[in-house]
Amino acid sequence: MNIAKTLREFRSLREQLPSPVGFVPTMGYLHDGHLSLARMAREDGASVVASIFVNPTQFAPTEDLDAYPRDLKRDLELLEAEGTDLVLTPETNDEFYPAGYDTWVDVAGITRVLEGASRPTHFRGVATVVAKLFNVVQPDRAYFGQKDAQQALVIRQLIRDLNFPIELVLGPTIREDDGLAMSSRNAYLSAEQRTAAPVLRRSLDRVEALYEGGERRGNVLRDAMQELIDTEPLATIDYVSVANLETLEEADVLEGKALVSLAVRFGKTRLIDNTILPRGASLI
Amino acid sequence: MNIAKTLREFRSLREQLPSPVGFVPTMGYLHDGHLSLARMAREDGASVVASIFVNPTQFAPTEDLDAYPRDLKRDLELLEAEGTDLVLTPETNDEFYPAGYDTWVDVAGITRVLEGASRPTHFRGVATVVAKLFNVVQPDRAYFGQKDAQQALVIRQLIRDLNFPIELVLGPTIREDDGLAMSSRNAYLSAEQRTAAPVLRRSLDRVEALYEGGERRGNVLRDAMQELIDTEPLATIDYVSVANLETLEEADVLEGKALVSLAVRFGKTRLIDNTILPRGASLI
Repeated sequence: MNIAKTLREFRSLREQLPSPVGFVPTMGYLHDGHLSLARMAREDGASVVASIFVNPTQFAPTEDLDAYPRDLKRDLELLEAEGTDLVLTPETNDEFYPAGYDTWVDVAGITRVLEGASRPTHFRGVATVVAKLFNVVQPDRAYFGQKDAQQALVIRQLIRDLNFPIELVLGPTIREDDGLAMSSRNAYLSAEQRTAAPVLRRSLDRVEALYEGGERRGNVLRDAMQELIDTEPLATIDYVSVANLETLEEADVLEGKALVSLAVRFGKTRLIDNTILPRGASLI
Repeated sequence: MNIAKTLREFRSLREQLPSPVGFVPTMGYLHDGHLSLARMAREDGASVVASIFVNPTQFAPTEDLDAYPRDLKRDLELLEAEGTDLVLTPETNDEFYPAGYDTWVDVAGITRVLEGASRPTHFRGVATVVAKLFNVVQPDRAYFGQKDAQQALVIRQLIRDLNFPIELVLGPTIREDDGLAMSSRNAYLSAEQRTAAPVLRRSLDRVEALYEGGERRGNVLRDAMQELIDTEPLATIDYVSVANLETLEEADVLEGKALVSLAVRFGKTRLIDNTILPRGASLI
Protein backbone atom coordinates (compact mmCIF):
# COMPACT_ATOMS: atom_id res chain seq x y z
CA MET A 1 0.00 0.00 0.00
CA ASN A 2 1.35 3.39 -0.98
CA ILE A 3 0.73 6.49 1.11
CA ALA A 4 0.82 9.98 -0.39
CA LYS A 5 1.04 13.01 1.89
CA THR A 6 0.96 15.58 -0.89
CA LEU A 7 -1.05 15.92 -4.09
CA ARG A 8 2.15 15.84 -6.10
CA GLU A 9 3.20 12.49 -4.61
CA PHE A 10 -0.33 11.21 -5.06
CA ARG A 11 -0.47 12.04 -8.75
CA SER A 12 2.67 10.12 -9.61
CA LEU A 13 1.52 7.08 -7.61
CA ARG A 14 -1.98 7.28 -9.09
CA GLU A 15 -0.61 7.12 -12.63
CA GLN A 16 0.79 3.68 -11.96
CA LEU A 17 -2.50 2.12 -10.80
CA PRO A 18 -4.29 -0.21 -13.21
CA SER A 19 -7.87 0.72 -14.19
CA PRO A 20 -10.59 0.63 -13.09
CA VAL A 21 -10.00 2.66 -9.95
CA GLY A 22 -12.45 2.60 -7.03
CA PHE A 23 -12.32 5.49 -4.58
CA VAL A 24 -13.36 5.62 -0.93
CA PRO A 25 -13.20 9.17 0.47
CA THR A 26 -13.13 9.34 4.28
CA MET A 27 -12.42 11.70 7.16
CA GLY A 28 -10.49 8.91 8.93
CA TYR A 29 -11.07 7.30 12.33
CA LEU A 30 -12.27 4.39 10.28
CA HIS A 31 -14.92 1.89 11.29
CA ASP A 32 -16.39 -1.09 9.54
CA GLY A 33 -18.70 1.17 7.53
CA HIS A 34 -15.69 2.70 5.77
CA LEU A 35 -13.90 -0.62 5.51
CA SER A 36 -16.92 -2.30 3.95
CA LEU A 37 -16.69 0.28 1.14
CA ALA A 38 -13.02 -0.52 0.53
CA ARG A 39 -13.99 -4.20 0.49
CA MET A 40 -16.75 -3.53 -2.06
CA ALA A 41 -14.28 -1.69 -4.30
CA ARG A 42 -11.81 -4.55 -4.05
CA GLU A 43 -14.53 -7.12 -4.80
CA ASP A 44 -15.59 -5.06 -7.83
CA GLY A 45 -12.12 -5.75 -9.22
CA ALA A 46 -10.86 -2.20 -8.93
CA SER A 47 -7.62 -0.72 -7.74
CA VAL A 48 -8.61 0.77 -4.39
CA VAL A 49 -7.78 4.37 -3.50
CA ALA A 50 -8.84 5.85 -0.15
CA SER A 51 -8.45 9.38 1.16
CA ILE A 52 -8.22 10.44 4.78
CA PHE A 53 -8.85 14.16 5.16
CA VAL A 54 -10.84 15.93 7.85
CA ASN A 55 -12.25 18.55 5.49
CA PRO A 56 -12.51 21.86 7.35
CA THR A 57 -14.95 23.47 4.90
CA GLN A 58 -17.78 21.10 5.78
CA PHE A 59 -17.66 22.10 9.46
CA ALA A 60 -19.25 25.31 10.72
CA PRO A 61 -17.14 27.43 13.12
CA THR A 62 -19.30 26.16 16.01
CA GLU A 63 -18.86 22.51 15.10
CA ASP A 64 -16.43 19.77 16.13
CA LEU A 65 -13.60 20.19 13.60
CA ASP A 66 -10.85 20.41 16.23
CA ALA A 67 -12.30 17.61 18.36
CA TYR A 68 -12.93 15.30 15.40
CA PRO A 69 -11.26 11.99 16.32
CA ARG A 70 -8.05 11.04 14.53
CA ASP A 71 -5.91 7.87 14.54
CA LEU A 72 -3.92 7.81 11.31
CA LYS A 73 -1.67 4.89 12.23
CA ARG A 74 -4.60 2.59 12.96
CA ASP A 75 -6.52 3.85 9.87
CA LEU A 76 -3.59 2.96 7.61
CA GLU A 77 -3.28 -0.51 9.13
CA LEU A 78 -6.99 -1.13 8.61
CA LEU A 79 -6.90 0.07 4.99
CA GLU A 80 -3.84 -2.05 4.27
CA ALA A 81 -5.60 -5.11 5.71
CA GLU A 82 -8.47 -4.51 3.25
CA GLY A 83 -6.07 -4.53 0.31
CA THR A 84 -6.14 -0.79 -0.35
CA ASP A 85 -3.58 0.19 -2.98
CA LEU A 86 -3.09 3.90 -2.40
CA VAL A 87 -4.04 6.33 0.37
CA LEU A 88 -4.09 10.11 0.06
CA THR A 89 -3.65 11.68 3.47
CA PRO A 90 -2.56 15.31 3.18
CA GLU A 91 -0.59 16.50 6.20
CA THR A 92 -1.90 20.07 6.07
CA ASN A 93 -5.14 21.75 5.05
CA ASP A 94 -3.03 24.00 2.79
CA GLU A 95 -2.65 21.10 0.39
CA PHE A 96 -6.36 21.38 -0.40
CA TYR A 97 -7.03 24.99 0.58
CA PRO A 98 -3.94 27.09 -0.09
CA ALA A 99 -3.86 30.84 0.56
CA GLY A 100 -6.20 32.58 -1.87
CA TYR A 101 -8.45 29.53 -2.25
CA ASP A 102 -11.87 30.82 -3.31
CA THR A 103 -13.92 28.34 -5.39
CA TRP A 104 -17.10 26.69 -4.14
CA VAL A 105 -19.36 24.01 -5.56
CA ASP A 106 -22.98 24.31 -4.48
CA VAL A 107 -25.62 21.70 -5.13
CA ALA A 108 -28.73 23.78 -4.47
CA GLY A 109 -32.26 22.42 -3.88
CA ILE A 110 -31.87 19.19 -1.92
CA THR A 111 -29.10 20.65 0.28
CA ARG A 112 -31.42 23.21 1.85
CA VAL A 113 -33.40 20.77 4.04
CA LEU A 114 -32.60 18.16 6.75
CA GLU A 115 -28.82 18.19 7.37
CA GLY A 116 -28.54 21.32 5.22
CA ALA A 117 -31.12 23.18 7.31
CA SER A 118 -29.24 22.33 10.52
CA ARG A 119 -25.81 22.84 8.93
CA PRO A 120 -26.20 25.55 6.22
CA THR A 121 -22.64 25.45 4.83
CA HIS A 122 -22.06 21.73 5.31
CA PHE A 123 -22.97 20.41 1.86
CA ARG A 124 -21.18 23.23 0.07
CA GLY A 125 -18.03 22.03 1.85
CA VAL A 126 -18.80 18.41 0.99
CA ALA A 127 -19.54 19.09 -2.69
CA THR A 128 -16.43 21.26 -3.01
CA VAL A 129 -14.01 18.77 -1.48
CA VAL A 130 -15.56 15.85 -3.33
CA ALA A 131 -15.24 17.70 -6.66
CA LYS A 132 -11.59 18.38 -5.79
CA LEU A 133 -10.98 14.77 -4.77
CA PHE A 134 -12.64 13.49 -7.94
CA ASN A 135 -10.29 15.64 -10.03
CA VAL A 136 -7.25 14.51 -8.06
CA VAL A 137 -8.12 10.79 -7.87
CA GLN A 138 -9.93 10.45 -11.22
CA PRO A 139 -11.73 7.29 -10.14
CA ASP A 140 -14.02 5.17 -12.30
CA ARG A 141 -16.24 4.45 -9.30
CA ALA A 142 -16.77 6.26 -6.01
CA TYR A 143 -18.05 4.52 -2.88
CA PHE A 144 -20.18 6.28 -0.28
CA GLY A 145 -22.19 4.95 2.65
CA GLN A 146 -25.96 5.02 2.86
CA LYS A 147 -25.68 6.15 6.50
CA ASP A 148 -25.16 9.66 5.11
CA ALA A 149 -28.20 9.34 2.87
CA GLN A 150 -28.64 13.01 1.99
CA GLN A 151 -24.92 13.29 1.24
CA ALA A 152 -25.26 10.34 -1.15
CA LEU A 153 -28.08 12.14 -2.97
CA VAL A 154 -25.98 15.31 -3.14
CA ILE A 155 -23.04 13.38 -4.60
CA ARG A 156 -25.33 11.74 -7.14
CA GLN A 157 -26.53 15.17 -8.24
CA LEU A 158 -22.98 16.57 -8.26
CA ILE A 159 -21.80 13.74 -10.52
CA ARG A 160 -24.78 14.09 -12.85
CA ASP A 161 -24.86 17.89 -13.02
CA LEU A 162 -21.12 18.44 -13.47
CA ASN A 163 -20.73 15.46 -15.84
CA PHE A 164 -18.12 13.62 -13.78
CA PRO A 165 -17.42 10.33 -15.62
CA ILE A 166 -17.78 8.44 -12.35
CA GLU A 167 -20.17 5.73 -11.20
CA LEU A 168 -21.58 6.23 -7.70
CA VAL A 169 -21.78 3.03 -5.62
CA LEU A 170 -23.48 3.01 -2.21
CA GLY A 171 -22.75 0.65 0.64
CA PRO A 172 -25.35 -0.24 3.30
CA THR A 173 -25.24 1.28 6.76
CA ILE A 174 -23.11 -0.93 9.02
CA ARG A 175 -24.41 -1.24 12.60
CA GLU A 176 -23.22 -2.34 15.99
CA ASP A 177 -24.93 -5.45 17.42
CA ASP A 178 -27.46 -3.31 19.27
CA GLY A 179 -28.42 -1.45 16.09
CA LEU A 180 -26.45 1.79 16.53
CA ALA A 181 -25.17 2.94 13.12
CA MET A 182 -21.38 3.00 13.04
CA SER A 183 -19.97 6.53 13.05
CA SER A 184 -16.62 8.05 13.92
CA ARG A 185 -18.59 10.37 16.20
CA ASN A 186 -19.77 7.43 18.36
CA ALA A 187 -16.34 7.74 20.00
CA TYR A 188 -17.58 10.95 21.67
CA LEU A 189 -20.38 9.16 23.57
CA SER A 190 -20.17 8.60 27.34
CA ALA A 191 -21.09 5.11 28.56
CA GLU A 192 -24.60 6.31 29.48
CA GLN A 193 -25.09 8.02 26.13
CA ARG A 194 -23.81 4.93 24.31
CA THR A 195 -26.38 2.81 26.14
CA ALA A 196 -29.14 5.25 25.18
CA ALA A 197 -28.18 5.72 21.53
CA PRO A 198 -29.78 2.55 20.06
CA VAL A 199 -33.13 4.30 20.53
CA LEU A 200 -32.41 5.86 17.12
CA ARG A 201 -32.51 2.56 15.25
CA ARG A 202 -35.53 1.46 17.31
CA SER A 203 -37.40 4.58 16.21
CA LEU A 204 -36.69 3.67 12.58
CA ASP A 205 -37.86 0.11 13.29
CA ARG A 206 -41.12 1.49 14.64
CA VAL A 207 -41.71 3.58 11.50
CA GLU A 208 -41.01 0.54 9.32
CA ALA A 209 -43.48 -1.54 11.33
CA LEU A 210 -46.18 1.14 11.12
CA TYR A 211 -45.60 1.50 7.39
CA GLU A 212 -45.86 -2.25 6.90
CA GLY A 213 -49.09 -2.18 8.89
CA GLY A 214 -50.45 0.23 6.25
CA GLU A 215 -49.78 3.64 7.82
CA ARG A 216 -49.02 6.25 5.13
CA ARG A 217 -49.56 9.55 6.96
CA GLY A 218 -46.25 11.41 7.31
CA ASN A 219 -47.17 13.18 10.53
CA VAL A 220 -48.22 9.94 12.24
CA LEU A 221 -44.89 8.35 11.29
CA ARG A 222 -42.89 11.40 12.43
CA ASP A 223 -44.81 11.58 15.70
CA ALA A 224 -44.13 7.91 16.38
CA MET A 225 -40.37 8.43 15.97
CA GLN A 226 -40.39 11.54 18.10
CA GLU A 227 -42.43 9.87 20.85
CA LEU A 228 -40.08 6.92 21.10
CA ILE A 229 -36.93 9.06 21.08
CA ASP A 230 -38.45 11.35 23.71
CA THR A 231 -38.64 8.40 26.10
CA GLU A 232 -34.85 8.62 26.27
CA PRO A 233 -33.90 11.54 28.57
CA LEU A 234 -30.33 11.81 27.19
CA ALA A 235 -31.61 12.33 23.62
CA THR A 236 -32.43 15.78 22.18
CA ILE A 237 -34.04 15.71 18.76
CA ASP A 238 -32.64 18.00 16.05
CA TYR A 239 -35.11 16.70 13.46
CA VAL A 240 -37.15 13.64 12.54
CA SER A 241 -38.22 13.45 8.91
CA VAL A 242 -40.31 11.32 6.59
CA ALA A 243 -39.65 12.81 3.17
CA ASN A 244 -40.27 12.11 -0.48
CA LEU A 245 -37.04 10.47 -1.66
CA GLU A 246 -36.82 12.51 -4.87
CA THR A 247 -37.45 16.00 -3.50
CA LEU A 248 -36.60 15.50 0.20
CA GLU A 249 -39.77 17.46 1.00
CA GLU A 250 -41.69 16.27 4.05
CA ALA A 251 -44.42 13.88 2.93
CA ASP A 252 -48.06 14.45 3.89
CA VAL A 253 -49.11 11.07 2.57
CA LEU A 254 -46.41 8.64 1.41
CA GLU A 255 -46.39 7.74 -2.25
CA GLY A 256 -43.41 6.05 -3.84
CA LYS A 257 -40.15 5.81 -1.94
CA ALA A 258 -39.54 7.78 1.26
CA LEU A 259 -36.41 8.68 3.21
CA VAL A 260 -36.98 8.35 6.94
CA SER A 261 -34.19 10.19 8.71
CA LEU A 262 -33.26 11.78 12.00
CA ALA A 263 -30.59 13.82 13.73
CA VAL A 264 -30.41 13.59 17.51
CA ARG A 265 -27.97 15.00 20.06
CA PHE A 266 -26.59 13.12 23.02
CA GLY A 267 -24.89 15.90 24.96
CA LYS A 268 -22.68 17.63 22.37
CA THR A 269 -22.62 14.60 20.07
CA ARG A 270 -24.93 14.81 17.08
CA LEU A 271 -25.83 11.46 15.49
CA ILE A 272 -27.79 10.73 12.31
CA ASP A 273 -29.48 7.63 10.98
CA ASN A 274 -32.01 6.71 8.30
CA THR A 275 -33.92 4.03 6.48
CA ILE A 276 -35.73 3.87 3.16
CA LEU A 277 -39.38 2.92 2.74
CA PRO A 278 -40.49 0.47 1.52
CA ARG A 279 -37.95 -1.49 3.58
CA GLY A 280 -35.11 -2.73 1.40
CA ALA A 281 -35.70 -0.17 -1.37
CA SER A 282 -32.55 1.41 -2.75
CA LEU A 283 -31.62 5.01 -1.97
CA ILE A 284 -30.50 5.77 -5.53
CA MET B 1 -13.51 16.17 -38.37
CA ASN B 2 -16.14 14.49 -36.22
CA ILE B 3 -19.16 16.37 -34.94
CA ALA B 4 -21.04 15.27 -31.82
CA LYS B 5 -24.50 16.64 -31.10
CA THR B 6 -24.98 14.78 -27.82
CA LEU B 7 -22.71 14.09 -24.87
CA ARG B 8 -23.12 10.37 -25.45
CA GLU B 9 -21.87 10.64 -29.04
CA PHE B 10 -19.09 12.92 -27.90
CA ARG B 11 -17.78 10.50 -25.28
CA SER B 12 -17.39 7.63 -27.71
CA LEU B 13 -15.63 9.85 -30.26
CA ARG B 14 -13.43 11.41 -27.57
CA GLU B 15 -12.17 7.99 -26.46
CA GLN B 16 -10.62 7.43 -29.86
CA LEU B 17 -8.54 10.64 -29.88
CA PRO B 18 -4.81 10.34 -29.26
CA SER B 19 -3.37 12.29 -26.31
CA PRO B 20 -2.61 15.04 -25.60
CA VAL B 21 -5.93 16.74 -26.21
CA GLY B 22 -6.23 20.51 -26.58
CA PHE B 23 -9.63 22.06 -26.01
CA VAL B 24 -11.06 25.32 -27.36
CA PRO B 25 -14.45 26.13 -25.79
CA THR B 26 -16.51 28.67 -27.75
CA MET B 27 -20.01 30.10 -28.07
CA GLY B 28 -19.73 29.90 -31.85
CA TYR B 29 -19.97 32.65 -34.48
CA LEU B 30 -16.25 32.15 -34.75
CA HIS B 31 -13.71 34.78 -35.65
CA ASP B 32 -9.96 34.71 -35.98
CA GLY B 33 -9.57 34.99 -32.20
CA HIS B 34 -11.19 31.59 -31.75
CA LEU B 35 -9.44 30.13 -34.75
CA SER B 36 -6.04 31.29 -33.54
CA LEU B 37 -6.65 29.20 -30.40
CA ALA B 38 -7.44 26.09 -32.46
CA ARG B 39 -4.27 26.79 -34.45
CA MET B 40 -2.21 27.07 -31.24
CA ALA B 41 -3.60 23.74 -30.02
CA ARG B 42 -2.74 22.10 -33.33
CA GLU B 43 0.77 23.60 -33.32
CA ASP B 44 1.25 22.31 -29.74
CA GLY B 45 0.87 18.82 -31.23
CA ALA B 46 -2.46 18.09 -29.61
CA SER B 47 -5.64 16.50 -30.88
CA VAL B 48 -7.95 19.50 -31.16
CA VAL B 49 -11.42 19.49 -29.63
CA ALA B 50 -13.71 22.52 -29.89
CA SER B 51 -17.13 23.11 -28.40
CA ILE B 52 -19.84 25.40 -29.74
CA PHE B 53 -22.46 26.10 -27.10
CA VAL B 54 -24.19 29.39 -26.36
CA ASN B 55 -24.29 28.79 -22.61
CA PRO B 56 -27.54 30.24 -21.22
CA THR B 57 -26.37 30.35 -17.60
CA GLN B 58 -23.78 33.04 -18.27
CA PHE B 59 -26.40 35.45 -19.62
CA ALA B 60 -28.67 37.45 -17.32
CA PRO B 61 -32.39 37.53 -18.25
CA THR B 62 -31.91 41.09 -19.57
CA GLU B 63 -28.96 40.17 -21.79
CA ASP B 64 -28.57 39.10 -25.41
CA LEU B 65 -28.92 35.30 -25.19
CA ASP B 66 -31.65 35.07 -27.84
CA ALA B 67 -29.99 37.59 -30.12
CA TYR B 68 -26.53 36.06 -29.81
CA PRO B 69 -25.33 35.49 -33.37
CA ARG B 70 -25.20 31.91 -34.66
CA ASP B 71 -23.85 30.36 -37.89
CA LEU B 72 -23.11 26.71 -37.20
CA LYS B 73 -22.43 25.70 -40.79
CA ARG B 74 -19.78 28.35 -41.25
CA ASP B 75 -18.28 27.64 -37.81
CA LEU B 76 -17.84 23.96 -38.65
CA GLU B 77 -16.18 24.80 -41.97
CA LEU B 78 -13.78 27.16 -40.25
CA LEU B 79 -12.90 24.63 -37.55
CA GLU B 80 -12.36 21.92 -40.13
CA ALA B 81 -10.02 24.19 -42.07
CA GLU B 82 -7.93 24.62 -38.91
CA GLY B 83 -7.55 20.85 -38.55
CA THR B 84 -9.95 20.44 -35.63
CA ASP B 85 -10.52 16.76 -34.84
CA LEU B 86 -13.78 16.78 -32.89
CA VAL B 87 -16.50 19.35 -32.26
CA LEU B 88 -19.11 19.16 -29.50
CA THR B 89 -22.17 21.14 -30.51
CA PRO B 90 -25.21 20.14 -28.43
CA GLU B 91 -28.48 20.75 -30.23
CA THR B 92 -30.44 21.59 -27.09
CA ASN B 93 -29.69 23.28 -23.77
CA ASP B 94 -31.16 20.17 -22.08
CA GLU B 95 -28.03 18.29 -22.95
CA PHE B 96 -26.13 20.47 -20.46
CA TYR B 97 -28.97 21.59 -18.21
CA PRO B 98 -31.60 18.85 -17.98
CA ALA B 99 -34.72 19.21 -15.82
CA GLY B 100 -33.70 19.28 -12.15
CA TYR B 101 -30.25 20.68 -12.89
CA ASP B 102 -29.11 22.48 -9.73
CA THR B 103 -25.31 22.59 -9.27
CA TRP B 104 -23.25 25.77 -9.46
CA VAL B 105 -19.55 26.49 -9.39
CA ASP B 106 -18.65 29.87 -7.98
CA VAL B 107 -15.18 31.39 -8.06
CA ALA B 108 -15.63 34.10 -5.44
CA GLY B 109 -13.32 37.11 -4.89
CA ILE B 110 -12.10 38.15 -8.33
CA THR B 111 -15.53 37.62 -9.91
CA ARG B 112 -17.13 40.38 -7.85
CA VAL B 113 -15.52 43.31 -9.71
CA LEU B 114 -15.32 44.59 -13.31
CA GLU B 115 -17.39 42.25 -15.53
CA GLY B 116 -18.74 40.55 -12.41
CA ALA B 117 -19.97 43.87 -10.96
CA SER B 118 -21.81 44.67 -14.21
CA ARG B 119 -22.96 41.06 -14.73
CA PRO B 120 -23.42 39.50 -11.26
CA THR B 121 -24.29 35.93 -12.35
CA HIS B 122 -22.05 35.85 -15.43
CA PHE B 123 -18.94 34.18 -14.01
CA ARG B 124 -20.95 31.66 -12.03
CA GLY B 125 -22.39 30.54 -15.37
CA VAL B 126 -18.95 30.55 -16.99
CA ALA B 127 -17.27 28.58 -14.18
CA THR B 128 -20.14 26.08 -14.10
CA VAL B 129 -20.18 25.36 -17.83
CA VAL B 130 -16.38 25.24 -18.04
CA ALA B 131 -16.23 22.74 -15.14
CA LYS B 132 -18.85 20.65 -16.97
CA LEU B 133 -16.98 20.92 -20.28
CA PHE B 134 -13.69 19.98 -18.61
CA ASN B 135 -15.31 16.82 -17.21
CA VAL B 136 -16.85 15.94 -20.56
CA VAL B 137 -13.82 16.73 -22.74
CA GLN B 138 -11.06 15.79 -20.26
CA PRO B 139 -8.44 17.85 -22.10
CA ASP B 140 -4.78 18.07 -21.22
CA ARG B 141 -4.71 21.74 -22.22
CA ALA B 142 -7.45 24.35 -22.49
CA TYR B 143 -7.14 27.44 -24.70
CA PHE B 144 -8.74 30.76 -23.83
CA GLY B 145 -8.33 34.23 -25.29
CA GLN B 146 -6.75 37.14 -23.46
CA LYS B 147 -9.52 39.41 -24.78
CA ASP B 148 -11.64 38.06 -21.93
CA ALA B 149 -8.91 38.78 -19.40
CA GLN B 150 -10.96 38.47 -16.24
CA GLN B 151 -12.49 35.24 -17.52
CA ALA B 152 -8.99 33.87 -18.06
CA LEU B 153 -8.10 34.70 -14.44
CA VAL B 154 -11.31 33.03 -13.26
CA ILE B 155 -10.51 29.88 -15.26
CA ARG B 156 -6.99 29.86 -13.85
CA GLN B 157 -8.42 29.97 -10.33
CA LEU B 158 -11.06 27.34 -11.17
CA ILE B 159 -8.38 24.95 -12.45
CA ARG B 160 -6.12 25.57 -9.48
CA ASP B 161 -8.79 25.48 -6.77
CA LEU B 162 -10.69 22.44 -8.03
CA ASN B 163 -7.49 20.57 -8.98
CA PHE B 164 -8.36 20.05 -12.63
CA PRO B 165 -5.36 18.30 -14.23
CA ILE B 166 -5.43 20.78 -17.09
CA GLU B 167 -2.92 23.34 -18.35
CA LEU B 168 -4.38 26.75 -19.17
CA VAL B 169 -2.98 28.32 -22.35
CA LEU B 170 -3.87 31.88 -23.34
CA GLY B 171 -3.91 33.30 -26.84
CA PRO B 172 -3.37 37.00 -27.57
CA THR B 173 -6.25 39.29 -28.45
CA ILE B 174 -6.74 39.28 -32.22
CA ARG B 175 -7.68 42.66 -33.70
CA GLU B 176 -9.12 44.10 -36.88
CA ASP B 177 -6.76 46.35 -38.88
CA ASP B 178 -8.10 49.46 -37.15
CA GLY B 179 -7.46 47.98 -33.69
CA LEU B 180 -10.96 46.80 -32.74
CA ALA B 181 -10.69 43.55 -30.77
CA MET B 182 -12.43 40.71 -32.59
CA SER B 183 -15.67 39.67 -30.92
CA SER B 184 -18.77 37.81 -32.04
CA ARG B 185 -20.71 40.78 -30.72
CA ASN B 186 -19.08 43.13 -33.28
CA ALA B 187 -21.71 41.73 -35.65
CA TYR B 188 -24.32 43.76 -33.78
CA LEU B 189 -22.67 47.11 -34.61
CA SER B 190 -24.21 49.51 -37.12
CA ALA B 191 -21.85 51.06 -39.68
CA GLU B 192 -21.57 54.23 -37.57
CA GLN B 193 -20.95 52.33 -34.39
CA ARG B 194 -18.35 50.18 -36.14
CA THR B 195 -16.52 53.31 -37.26
CA ALA B 196 -16.58 54.67 -33.71
CA ALA B 197 -15.54 51.45 -31.90
CA PRO B 198 -11.74 51.65 -32.45
CA VAL B 199 -11.73 54.42 -29.84
CA LEU B 200 -11.51 51.57 -27.31
CA ARG B 201 -8.12 50.39 -28.49
CA ARG B 202 -6.94 54.02 -28.82
CA SER B 203 -7.83 54.61 -25.17
CA LEU B 204 -5.67 51.62 -24.20
CA ASP B 205 -2.87 52.99 -26.40
CA ARG B 206 -3.08 56.28 -24.53
CA VAL B 207 -2.76 54.57 -21.14
CA GLU B 208 0.22 52.58 -22.38
CA ALA B 209 1.88 55.78 -23.62
CA LEU B 210 1.24 57.62 -20.34
CA TYR B 211 2.58 54.64 -18.38
CA GLU B 212 5.68 54.52 -20.52
CA GLY B 213 6.13 58.24 -19.92
CA GLY B 214 6.30 57.43 -16.18
CA GLU B 215 2.70 57.98 -15.06
CA ARG B 216 1.77 55.58 -12.22
CA ARG B 217 -1.33 57.22 -10.71
CA GLY B 218 -4.38 55.01 -11.31
CA ASN B 219 -6.89 57.87 -11.38
CA VAL B 220 -4.85 59.82 -13.96
CA LEU B 221 -4.74 56.75 -16.21
CA ARG B 222 -8.46 56.02 -15.76
CA ASP B 223 -9.34 59.66 -16.44
CA ALA B 224 -7.30 59.64 -19.62
CA MET B 225 -9.19 56.61 -20.93
CA GLN B 226 -12.53 58.07 -19.98
CA GLU B 227 -11.75 61.44 -21.55
CA LEU B 228 -10.76 59.89 -24.87
CA ILE B 229 -13.76 57.55 -25.00
CA ASP B 230 -16.07 60.44 -24.09
CA THR B 231 -15.00 62.26 -27.29
CA GLU B 232 -17.00 59.58 -29.14
CA PRO B 233 -20.71 60.44 -28.90
CA LEU B 234 -21.87 56.87 -29.75
CA ALA B 235 -19.88 55.37 -26.83
CA THR B 236 -21.32 54.99 -23.31
CA ILE B 237 -18.83 53.83 -20.70
CA ASP B 238 -19.81 50.97 -18.41
CA TYR B 239 -16.43 51.01 -16.66
CA VAL B 240 -12.79 51.89 -17.20
CA SER B 241 -10.36 50.21 -14.84
CA VAL B 242 -6.68 50.17 -13.97
CA ALA B 243 -6.37 47.35 -11.46
CA ASN B 244 -3.76 45.33 -9.66
CA LEU B 245 -3.43 42.17 -11.77
CA GLU B 246 -3.43 39.81 -8.78
CA THR B 247 -6.40 41.19 -6.83
CA LEU B 248 -8.25 43.09 -9.58
CA GLU B 249 -8.65 45.94 -7.09
CA GLU B 250 -8.43 49.44 -8.55
CA ALA B 251 -4.87 50.68 -8.20
CA ASP B 252 -4.09 54.00 -6.51
CA VAL B 253 -0.47 53.88 -7.55
CA LEU B 254 0.65 51.16 -9.94
CA GLU B 255 3.14 48.64 -8.58
CA GLY B 256 3.80 45.37 -10.36
CA LYS B 257 1.55 44.29 -13.19
CA ALA B 258 -1.76 45.99 -13.89
CA LEU B 259 -4.82 45.02 -15.91
CA VAL B 260 -6.18 47.99 -17.85
CA SER B 261 -9.69 47.13 -18.96
CA LEU B 262 -12.93 48.67 -20.13
CA ALA B 263 -16.52 47.89 -21.02
CA VAL B 264 -18.32 50.32 -23.29
CA ARG B 265 -21.72 50.27 -24.93
CA PHE B 266 -22.46 51.28 -28.50
CA GLY B 267 -26.24 51.33 -28.52
CA LYS B 268 -27.26 47.95 -27.08
CA THR B 269 -23.90 46.37 -27.90
CA ARG B 270 -21.50 46.02 -25.00
CA LEU B 271 -17.85 45.60 -25.95
CA ILE B 272 -14.82 44.88 -23.76
CA ASP B 273 -11.10 45.23 -24.29
CA ASN B 274 -7.93 45.27 -22.19
CA THR B 275 -4.18 45.47 -22.07
CA ILE B 276 -1.57 44.51 -19.48
CA LEU B 277 1.00 46.91 -18.07
CA PRO B 278 3.92 46.90 -18.50
CA ARG B 279 3.17 46.46 -22.20
CA GLY B 280 3.87 42.89 -23.31
CA ALA B 281 3.64 41.44 -19.79
CA SER B 282 1.74 38.19 -19.56
CA LEU B 283 -1.72 38.00 -18.02
CA ILE B 284 -1.04 34.74 -16.19
